[in-house]
Amino acid sequence: MIEKLNLTMLTDYYEITMANGYFTAGMADEIGYFDMFFRKIPEDGGYAIMAGLEQVIEYLKKLEFTEEDIEFLRSKKIFNEEFLKYLADFRFACDVWAVPEGTPIFPGEPLITVRGPVMQAQFIETMILLLINHQSLIATKASRIVRAAEGRPVMEFGTRRAHGTAAAVYGARASFIGGCAGTACTIADEDFGTPALGTMAHSWVQMFDNEYEAFKAYTEIYPTNATLLVDTYNVLKSGIPAAIKVFKELDPPVKGIRIDSGDIAYLTKNARKMLDEAGLTDCKIVISNSLDEHIIHDVISEGACIDSFGVGEKLITSKSEPVFGGVYKLSALEKDGQMIPKIKISENTEKITNPGFKKIFRFFDKDTDRLLGDVIALRDEEMPSGEEYEIFDPNHVWKKKKITNFYVKELQEPIFKSGECVYEFPDIRDIKAYCLQQQDRMWDEMKRFENPQTYYVDLSHKLWSLKNEMIEAAK
Amino acid sequence: MIEKLNLTMLTDYYEITMANGYFTAGMADEIGYFDMFFRKIPEDGGYAIMAGLEQVIEYLKKLEFTEEDIEFLRSKKIFNEEFLKYLADFRFACDVWAVPEGTPIFPGEPLITVRGPVMQAQFIETMILLLINHQSLIATKASRIVRAAEGRPVMEFGTRRAHGTAAAVYGARASFIGGCAGTACTIADEDFGTPALGTMAHSWVQMFDNEYEAFKAYTEIYPTNATLLVDTYNVLKSGIPAAIKVFKELDPPVKGIRIDSGDIAYLTKNARKMLDEAGLTDCKIVISNSLDEHIIHDVISEGACIDSFGVGEKLITSKSEPVFGGVYKLSALEKDGQMIPKIKISENTEKITNPGFKKIFRFFDKDTDRLLGDVIALRDEEMPSGEEYEIFDPNHVWKKKKITNFYVKELQEPIFKSGECVYEFPDIRDIKAYCLQQQDRMWDEMKRFENPQTYYVDLSHKLWSLKNEMIEAAK
Repeated sequence: MIEKLNLTMLTDYYEITMANGYFTAGMADEIGYFDMFFRKIPEDGGYAIMAGLEQVIEYLKKLEFTEEDIEFLRSKKIFNEEFLKYLADFRFACDVWAVPEGTPIFPGEPLITVRGPVMQAQFIETMILLLINHQSLIATKASRIVRAAEGRPVMEFGTRRAHGTAAAVYGARASFIGGCAGTACTIADEDFGTPALGTMAHSWVQMFDNEYEAFKAYTEIYPTNATLLVDTYNVLKSGIPAAIKVFKELDPPVKGIRIDSGDIAYLTKNARKMLDEAGLTDCKIVISNSLDEHIIHDVISEGACIDSFGVGEKLITSKSEPVFGGVYKLSALEKDGQMIPKIKISENTEKITNPGFKKIFRFFDKDTDRLLGDVIALRDEEMPSGEEYEIFDPNHVWKKKKITNFYVKELQEPIFKSGECVYEFPDIRDIKAYCLQQQDRMWDEMKRFENPQTYYVDLSHKLWSLKNEMIEAAK
Repeated sequence: MIEKLNLTMLTDYYEITMANGYFTAGMADEIGYFDMFFRKIPEDGGYAIMAGLEQVIEYLKKLEFTEEDIEFLRSKKIFNEEFLKYLADFRFACDVWAVPEGTPIFPGEPLITVRGPVMQAQFIETMILLLINHQSLIATKASRIVRAAEGRPVMEFGTRRAHGTAAAVYGARASFIGGCAGTACTIADEDFGTPALGTMAHSWVQMFDNEYEAFKAYTEIYPTNATLLVDTYNVLKSGIPAAIKVFKELDPPVKGIRIDSGDIAYLTKNARKMLDEAGLTDCKIVISNSLDEHIIHDVISEGACIDSFGVGEKLITSKSEPVFGGVYKLSALEKDGQMIPKIKISENTEKITNPGFKKIFRFFDKDTDRLLGDVIALRDEEMPSGEEYEIFDPNHVWKKKKITNFYVKELQEPIFKSGECVYEFPDIRDIKAYCLQQQDRMWDEMKRFENPQTYYVDLSHKLWSLKNEMIEAAK
């Protein structure tokens, strides 16, 4: 069981120097607004998947500085004693809104918005980024791999190559949200209910005089879990013949073989033939050899006979792109009850932030429930309604599109209100089902691995005007 | 403070099905030997760095199954009640040997060797791999990046892009072992003493009416930690002029600027010029913009004026190669007091394992202390001595080399004896110093990023003969 930890001090040191700075400069009570968003979809894919919010909530609920933490900070000899006293009595007081886990997400959208005393709202930056970046990365990768498998179950088998214990456990969780059927990681099953799966390693086979003895012993003990690893010596010459012999003798109710090396298409086609000829048409074939979405797609096209996949290091590390580049930026301040939008200008157009307190509208087709496009708007704007809504590309405003026959949902939900959690957390199975449903509602063109169609994420007229005024003013 | 967790159930499910299998098949008391080793150095580098052993030791010391764990396993309805009782009374009883942290390591070498009841020795596979793979990956990457910086301090700044909390904390630890001067990760400082560093984000600057106000407020509060982030608006036009103004007015004892975007060589050369012309020759320049060993090497060659580097996502995820492929294989069994070596044969020559209970000899030059080569030998072989020792390539036996003027060290040290820890853990600063010293003792040819010289890792005559006999016998 993973005990719940106090991770308050898991933060970039500059969050603490800034907090002490705001406190000391007399800005302790100023209210700031921060957005967490990302700029680029991993691997130039058509969408990403939001994940990690439950861990953000757990972290925020438990924010507290122990005596030991205070003592540690005091030893640095740069922090104000009054500030340390404030930390000792710390009570989280921010408002938080967020996009629910399992939602398809797109660059620029405020996935999490925090409003509160700048000292606090700034402080929680590191953990919000760490948790959302990690799990969204893995959920997104899992969704790609599961899609490539075209309905065949995919198991997450990467625990041993994860970047530390949390990456293994929460990577398994995120993989499940992204669509995986289960995991090798036992503690994730115990803690989250993501089903743990697995049977044997090569060492089990090596422990016996031959494969037949190894398979027979295993099948006698686990007649309902008899997936036999057939590639310790030679798949077609010894592994499968031994498995067939055992299955014929013992006829276990669940029969399977796993192949962990060699050419997948060649071996599985021959394996299927041998099993079928032996009358074992109900014997499943599991593959687990350095897989990712591209290899899975290729071997399926080659006609490989596979019932399910075990995917290891390339999923748990998102090997081909191991970074989800979420950032956390100031978008507004309240001064004397007045909202002052803030913008970060950059030479690089995509790096200019969206100012103000915002929300996201997602447009769906009334008949098909398909996703039609998103609009980032200011918080006080009304939900679009009526027959027609015109969206436009914020960088190329002549690119316009009329949306019709739509209904609209707001993507952000309230999570904390003045520091109190107001969000009822869904069961992970419901998150997964929601995630798969939302993916089904996206056009196939968005889900291609190569050059997917770019989804519309536009700005409302009001937000666009505010942003442009601020850019002009900064010049 | 990171409380110490019980991570017993953080294991691949098949470790438990196999353990129950051995128990049920009457093999509970059979003694097995397992080696943890890796096959390929990340990024085709010349060496890797061992790290993560302290966490393996902590894990092994705390192995225990709670009632909740037992209940969870019982709910699976496939485990023997006697086995569950065994787990409830679990007492770790293995012997463990390992290569100390900070040691340069090479493919094929047994980094950790475990001897004990197969049920136990097999069970701990997942966590040994997870912990050593992760930290060795990051320590190795850190060592590359630190080398590229040619003596300038490198700070680990990647917490927000780490794969979960443990990756952030233990990634900071491994980076320190690999040579980093400090980290942004506060809790790593609190727990391990790896110095935490950092000053301000862009949001600090945005909170004020202009950069001058922001820098002045910060410098007044932190005269000894005044590294000012100068790229919120425009580095050369506004950021540096504002920093110069504040430094001239307040003359803090520690002065620095940090640049987090734009062309490093161009900006730092101009920044240095502006600072020097203002008489601020003592003002340091810190760079932190998507760095890795290649970019650092390039900007230094271009004459960039940099005093230290902050390295983020490309270090904490080892982005260019995020997997350290350590494996854990059965190498021998004891039956009736007799040692029976085991081998895993493969079509792929590099995947054939080294059989038997082994150790590693490392040869050093008597005069220069340079590393000359390693030899993997059987455990009962004597330490090489005398004037001359002939090593040979195990795959191309005609490639021979005579080593002279040498002394030899055994790399593995005893860690657990019958389940009791017998290892006194070094301070992390000593591990780091040892790591840097050992790197200094490697030839520069091994430390090149492109096509480094391959270090000799050969087999003793006795081990080579045993391996070849077993390969012949398997045919």
